[in-house]
Amino acid sequence: MNKLLDGIIENNRIWTKQGKVATYIPELSKADPQAMGIYISALNGEEHFAGDYSTKFTIQSMSKVLTLMLAIMDNGKEKVFSTIGMEPTADAFNSIINLETKNKQRPLNPMINSGAIATTSLIKGNSSEEVFNRILEFTRKATGNPDININEAVYESEKHTADRNRALAYFMKGTGVIENDVENVLDVYFKQCSMEVTCKDIARIGAMLANDGVVCWNQERIIPREVARIVKTIMTTCGMYDASGHFAVHIGIPAKSGVGGGILAAVPKRAGIGVFGPALDEKGNSIAGIKMLEELSNELDLSIF
Amino acid sequence: MNKLLDGIIENNRIWTKQGKVATYIPELSKADPQAMGIYISALNGEEHFAGDYSTKFTIQSMSKVLTLMLAIMDNGKEKVFSTIGMEPTADAFNSIINLETKNKQRPLNPMINSGAIATTSLIKGNSSEEVFNRILEFTRKATGNPDININEAVYESEKHTADRNRALAYFMKGTGVIENDVENVLDVYFKQCSMEVTCKDIARIGAMLANDGVVCWNQERIIPREVARIVKTIMTTCGMYDASGHFAVHIGIPAKSGVGGGILAAVPKRAGIGVFGPALDEKGNSIAGIKMLEELSNELDLSIF
Amino acid sequence: MNKLLDGIIENNRIWTKQGKVATYIPELSKADPQAMGIYISALNGEEHFAGDYSTKFTIQSMSKVLTLMLAIMDNGKEKVFSTIGMEPTADAFNSIINLETKNKQRPLNPMINSGAIATTSLIKGNSSEEVFNRILEFTRKATGNPDININEAVYESEKHTADRNRALAYFMKGTGVIENDVENVLDVYFKQCSMEVTCKDIARIGAMLANDGVVCWNQERIIPREVARIVKTIMTTCGMYDASGHFAVHIGIPAKSGVGGGILAAVPKRAGIGVFGPALDEKGNSIAGIKMLEELSNELDLSIF
Amino acid sequence: MNKLLDGIIENNRIWTKQGKVATYIPELSKADPQAMGIYISALNGEEHFAGDYSTKFTIQSMSKVLTLMLAIMDNGKEKVFSTIGMEPTADAFNSIINLETKNKQRPLNPMINSGAIATTSLIKGNSSEEVFNRILEFTRKATGNPDININEAVYESEKHTADRNRALAYFMKGTGVIENDVENVLDVYFKQCSMEVTCKDIARIGAMLANDGVVCWNQERIIPREVARIVKTIMTTCGMYDASGHFAVHIGIPAKSGVGGGILAAVPKRAGIGVFGPALDEKGNSIAGIKMLEELSNELDLSIF
Repeated sequence: MNKLLDGIIENNRIWTKQGKVATYIPELSKADPQAMGIYISALNGEEHFAGDYSTKFTIQSMSKVLTLMLAIMDNGKEKVFSTIGMEPTADAFNSIINLETKNKQRPLNPMINSGAIATTSLIKGNSSEEVFNRILEFTRKATGNPDININEAVYESEKHTADRNRALAYFMKGTGVIENDVENVLDVYFKQCSMEVTCKDIARIGAMLANDGVVCWNQERIIPREVARIVKTIMTTCGMYDASGHFAVHIGIPAKSGVGGGILAAVPKRAGIGVFGPALDEKGNSIAGIKMLEELSNELDLSIF
Repeated sequence: MNKLLDGIIENNRIWTKQGKVATYIPELSKADPQAMGIYISALNGEEHFAGDYSTKFTIQSMSKVLTLMLAIMDNGKEKVFSTIGMEPTADAFNSIINLETKNKQRPLNPMINSGAIATTSLIKGNSSEEVFNRILEFTRKATGNPDININEAVYESEKHTADRNRALAYFMKGTGVIENDVENVLDVYFKQCSMEVTCKDIARIGAMLANDGVVCWNQERIIPREVARIVKTIMTTCGMYDASGHFAVHIGIPAKSGVGGGILAAVPKRAGIGVFGPALDEKGNSIAGIKMLEELSNELDLSIF
Repeated sequence: MNKLLDGIIENNRIWTKQGKVATYIPELSKADPQAMGIYISALNGEEHFAGDYSTKFTIQSMSKVLTLMLAIMDNGKEKVFSTIGMEPTADAFNSIINLETKNKQRPLNPMINSGAIATTSLIKGNSSEEVFNRILEFTRKATGNPDININEAVYESEKHTADRNRALAYFMKGTGVIENDVENVLDVYFKQCSMEVTCKDIARIGAMLANDGVVCWNQERIIPREVARIVKTIMTTCGMYDASGHFAVHIGIPAKSGVGGGILAAVPKRAGIGVFGPALDEKGNSIAGIKMLEELSNELDLSIF
Repeated sequence: MNKLLDGIIENNRIWTKQGKVATYIPELSKADPQAMGIYISALNGEEHFAGDYSTKFTIQSMSKVLTLMLAIMDNGKEKVFSTIGMEPTADAFNSIINLETKNKQRPLNPMINSGAIATTSLIKGNSSEEVFNRILEFTRKATGNPDININEAVYESEKHTADRNRALAYFMKGTGVIENDVENVLDVYFKQCSMEVTCKDIARIGAMLANDGVVCWNQERIIPREVARIVKTIMTTCGMYDASGHFAVHIGIPAKSGVGGGILAAVPKRAGIGVFGPALDEKGNSIAGIKMLEELSNELDLSIF
């Protein structure tokens, strides 16, 4: 198995040259475009890995999966999905158009930026610090890694270059989708995106989802089974932005990407997978990460379809 | 099991009053809004049914599943998906906007009208009669029902009220997506939509897909495994139009609806399901059909997620 | 004055190289990209001209001005503008988006293709032949040129390459904007676009509008004063497609362009102007034609603002 | 003449009941919906007035005319119109869509909110206080009224309810249209909108534009002739938002409205007109104000077309 993973890394290294490291957040542009890592956390307890599996990177949009779980547990699914839709969209992850054109002015789903910011605004807490701390603690619990923290440089960088996210948030404030103070909500959002993880950490989150909400190392249930199922479903239809359909056809596993280069995948009943590769394709997904998952899915017949 | 199905019909009959029979094709408006049927064709050979399972209705958009299979087998998946995309959309099934706004001017996926018309244009044949006959024969083979035929009244009705579909087709002709004569392509499209089926017929098609391309009654493979997988995936992400995300979360089964009131569902490795109920919701999906599938999925734990 | 016009032609000849002759209608691509002509028909009876002022070219979208006059006279302004809007748009002349997105699904104005096709559908007549003959007779009357006729080759070429216009027309048929048979309406539309004119002819139409509806050579009123004013206003706000704002600021004269390379302009109380130059800019307007009008407007202080 | 104006007020009072006072800025909702005023400042020095012509109201979007003049004088027209377009749009005054969909991501024109905020960002000054003071001084000069000042309550109200304008501004910051600090730019924008004027004041601004940039009472030129012409042109094509086409056809005078209920109009070579009526139509224009201008234009033949 480790040999298989080593091979997958080598077979797909060539793809890193086709992609580009994210530059719109200056700190992210410092990543090594050729880095590649993979980590599998199987539900039977086995763990396999290869490449730069222990390199730290920021979780970015993969955090949307965690905040969606918290928001549903805090508010119930009815409240969450009357505020944010659950429909995939062919528009880009940072698109603002549907907020003006769709009748109900809801963000279309929790995996695009508008929907994710609205999701974060629903998480309970007496202050933005408390809200973020709840997200951080939940992330540590889901990964079994008490050392997870934010990368301060990335957080500051996000905060100062987030004009499009500010536009999305203020638009939603104007239409009533967001009820809280916009700057507080955005501060939590920038922090959640700046949490540093490894392939192992995200594989562990994927394993918990694959295991219907129970972490593998101590059998603790941290989210209800229904929440795990909802999240996996939305990852499948919306998790790879406007390449979600392509990913479903070619890989067929619930997954969520982040512009830091990570992809978090959950193979129901079998395993969580974390891959890493900071060179991105034009949709904002890790280019080598997708190719590694495609080869792995074909080799091990992982598609759910 | 039959008792379960009888119960599901009764439990959800109330929903038929919330929906409306399609009226834009005059012939469709004659359907009984209170009709409800269900048919399960399990891969182990068992068949179960209840309600109006033997009532005939036109296949409508469920035919998009059949033409997608034929188009891929005729042209290869590369050709099909360079002509038509595979991304879900939050726009309505008959929307024309993306044909103008998206860079490549491809229809977004084969399950919305624009993409389905383009798919039909790719099916081989020396004349539009030959193309349709190939679709009809394939449908008879996939259902094991040699008596399937078109409802002439519906076909004529479609043909004379299809201004929006004509607009979609001429737009795609103008951008080069469709290369054949538009009126010929549309004629095939109207005919494929007018084929009459029962819940049993569509359950059989679902069973073939669930069985990775092999029909259950004689173990004949009629499509390659990969084609079956692609089609099930696209049904999951795009099959219920701009309610696909909602359907995936609440039911979690690859499915395709038609405005005649049918829904064709494929539970991988387990069964095909056909449901029927002509009263539609505002998205154009059978309102009671969705509710019956939701109850069935919950009862039998059918979600793939 | 003739010297001024000769100079304007020479000063702006260089612009012809920046533009391209229309190619989407094959016949139009045969035009000489370097041709340039200008004709002024002053209300005091003076006429001035230079360059290829007697070269024939097809009237194309300038015919929208004539059909708008007829449609208003046939139906009254209330009927016309409840069917077609009078608002300028930043979308291209052949855009279909607003037909789906704007609440009332009306074409935005009579100068873009959708609105012009709807306008033609409102002109009275017992057959499409009669409708077109009324347009032809009106054009002959407005120009004082009984020899105007259609260019058959262009008409056939339009008819066989008009997929986008067909899409617009069928879309409007589907939403009820067009009530007549679509192919009949389009046949009239292709014919009206194929009428052959010279700079002199279009200058004469402009002079009639400048003179509030009265032709100069025999003082016959051919349209009411109010119709002339409405048409000049809509030419100002919408006549140069999505470059109308730019044209208003830089030239400031009511005008309408055609992809054959002509621009018809009406300087209120003073003169009609016809310019010609088949090389078009990216918006579909004659590139040298605009530059000639700009120089002329500056020299003679023609802006209405 | 005063009798004519009195009659116009009475004839159109009924329209005030069809409209609604703006409520999205809470302070504005306190206005008297039945108030109506009119003031004419003719270039020959005559002044006429009727109704609530001396009632103060906030200038709101009519300030866009003043900032456009300053921005052009500060930067030249090339710089201004390479940053902001000059094309009318059929979208609403606060629409954000075109900022994402149009190729160059420029706001379409300086009369809609996005374009006006970008225009303000171009006005020179070492601080936002200095920028606003320049606008205030210019407004006092253009009106001949040294007492003009901001309404502090409206300014505070704008500042706290301007989520949509914030969204527009941050979006443009993200695409590079706005280079300055967004909150500073918005602070100036809210202040410029909060300046209090009367019908007389805005009639005076209109007279200056009608007089090609020269104020009537002391013959001082305060803007170049070309700037006056550009501004009048853009008022004609874009000044009444997505009702600009309707206004041009029915009234035919360069004009700009504000949600405070004012309309500033400039009849070239003849007069400036200020009308007031806080009840607005659905496009955000004074409903009785438009009707009063329509009657006045018809009575005195003021259309420029």
